[in-house]
Amino acid sequence: MTVALDGYGAEQGFDVLAEGAKLAAADGIAVRVFGPEQALGLNRVEGVEVVPTTEWIGNDEDPVAAVRAKKEASVVRAAREVAEGRAEAMVSPGSTGATMAAATFGLRRLKGVQRPALAVQVPVPGKPVLLLDVGANVEVRAQHLVQFAFLGAAFSAAVLDVDRPTVGLLTVGEESGKGRDEVVEAHRLLSAAEGIEFAGNVEGRDLPAAKVDVVVTDGFTGNVALKLLEGTARAVATAVGDAARSNPIASLGGLLLKPALGSLRRELHPDTTGGAILLGLRGVAVVGHGSSGAEGIANAVRLAARCAEVDAVGRTAALLLEGDAGRGALAAEDGA
Amino acid sequence: MTVALDGYGAEQGFDVLAEGAKLAAADGIAVRVFGPEQALGLNRVEGVEVVPTTEWIGNDEDPVAAVRAKKEASVVRAAREVAEGRAEAMVSPGSTGATMAAATFGLRRLKGVQRPALAVQVPVPGKPVLLLDVGANVEVRAQHLVQFAFLGAAFSAAVLDVDRPTVGLLTVGEESGKGRDEVVEAHRLLSAAEGIEFAGNVEGRDLPAAKVDVVVTDGFTGNVALKLLEGTARAVATAVGDAARSNPIASLGGLLLKPALGSLRRELHPDTTGGAILLGLRGVAVVGHGSSGAEGIANAVRLAARCAEVDAVGRTAALLLEGDAGRGALAAEDGA
Repeated sequence: MTVALDGYGAEQGFDVLAEGAKLAAADGIAVRVFGPEQALGLNRVEGVEVVPTTEWIGNDEDPVAAVRAKKEASVVRAAREVAEGRAEAMVSPGSTGATMAAATFGLRRLKGVQRPALAVQVPVPGKPVLLLDVGANVEVRAQHLVQFAFLGAAFSAAVLDVDRPTVGLLTVGEESGKGRDEVVEAHRLLSAAEGIEFAGNVEGRDLPAAKVDVVVTDGFTGNVALKLLEGTARAVATAVGDAARSNPIASLGGLLLKPALGSLRRELHPDTTGGAILLGLRGVAVVGHGSSGAEGIANAVRLAARCAEVDAVGRTAALLLEGDAGRGALAAEDGA
Repeated sequence: MTVALDGYGAEQGFDVLAEGAKLAAADGIAVRVFGPEQALGLNRVEGVEVVPTTEWIGNDEDPVAAVRAKKEASVVRAAREVAEGRAEAMVSPGSTGATMAAATFGLRRLKGVQRPALAVQVPVPGKPVLLLDVGANVEVRAQHLVQFAFLGAAFSAAVLDVDRPTVGLLTVGEESGKGRDEVVEAHRLLSAAEGIEFAGNVEGRDLPAAKVDVVVTDGFTGNVALKLLEGTARAVATAVGDAARSNPIASLGGLLLKPALGSLRRELHPDTTGGAILLGLRGVAVVGHGSSGAEGIANAVRLAARCAEVDAVGRTAALLLEGDAGRGALAAEDGA
């Protein structure tokens, strides 16, 4: 099991990325890093191999143009590594746009899938919720939302071991007529669809309450929602910490409570999920959280390896084609 | 100072609404309740007057059609009370759509304002942030977002006493080209506008971090964001509480910490802000939080009274027309 890792783009710098690669390698995952000269020292680490790479794509570049122009950029090479069968999955902690472009061009879409979507296991208390799209498509049509529902459900069943995952459509009210035109239409299509446990509309509050296993939305709303959820959890946790430092009695209380809060802290930390996965492609591509620490990088590599191990792509494709409705939803899109 | 209160639609029932009316009346606000027969007992309370009303509009009705058809519905009568000068402000804890329709038809829009927007002070740790639109317009054009920016800034200065409020545009990245077409265009227009402290794009995480005073978005994203933020704060607070009950030592810690958490709990409780205000009209209309308790109802009435007291409508209109840019933004819309 080999994971191709883009060695550029970790906001916390290369040393943190290297630390993450080491952690993942210690779990028995072969990590091939497309990174700078300074990375060569990593070759001494068991399970890590460095491919010196001098070109990369920055956050400020136009992703599609940059991926087309820079054939030797680290993220493009990582995608090619998977496309040509030398690695089972790719991971990049760099520009989300460049990673999506490199993966989409390099790995190509599953048959019938028109728009790949970025999915992430949202860190909420209790069980995680799979949210998609979190940024691949800022505008969508109803048919895309239907595809996201099938992609998310298939991934949830295949990789996250959720039995008959329930899927909710994110909008502004529970009633079927609530929301933008494409959302109302997607609700109608999903209500009639077979092969999916459509739970109807869900609202913003239902996401942290983990009311359903998979929440489907467009990439604009999903991106705002993901960052808002992470930011709110952090802000509340910080405010609780501040309260626990506000006077000596509260301090003692905080100290006694701290061990019990440890698992909640891990549950809510963005590093825990490791990143977002691009669904709908013929290969595994994981976009790491930009601000990931070493544990976050390692978890992104672990998530990619797990997806490859369980044949997430093949099983997602099979589940997509299984139900009549799934076939119908995808076939309709083919002609669009 | 008289506030017209729609006596129907409080999810927790009429008794909770009556309790809220009493609390507000105790502050010296005259509350005129358009409510059911059972409300008549309230007439004994100093400052509360009941106008028996038998018709109302439910959450399941089409708001615009219902407001047009039911001239004697409680929310329509409350709006008429303000339009005809017998009350200074209206409050409804019922259907948001019906309240918006009743207020928009009854109170009419300020000159130049094409789309009124629902604004709410979002409960985040530290200072509140004004978020709009949280549900009046699920689809917007760039020009609407520009208007929301001016409306929100004017309200923030006039009612919330924020000196030169900063305004951020909610989207998927900091760079000016990030987001949907209308957001990119609104960014361009606001960057060139005068008379407003435009702080550029903000992301989901910047809302709970209170990076700016006013956050502008469309009513779909804003509605999802508001409910998500409230839900996440509640979920994290619940999880902290659960941790504090998980073992005896943690229990003691929770007990010692509890007093210090009191103000945070109040800050984050949706009842604290009282509800959303419909900006851009010639009168004050507040939409209460559907699930409000008595304190939430009272705070909605207090918010409405405060808006009327400080002449929020007149000052917002004046601030809107003050800057050349504000005039330009509104004038452009007039011709659209």
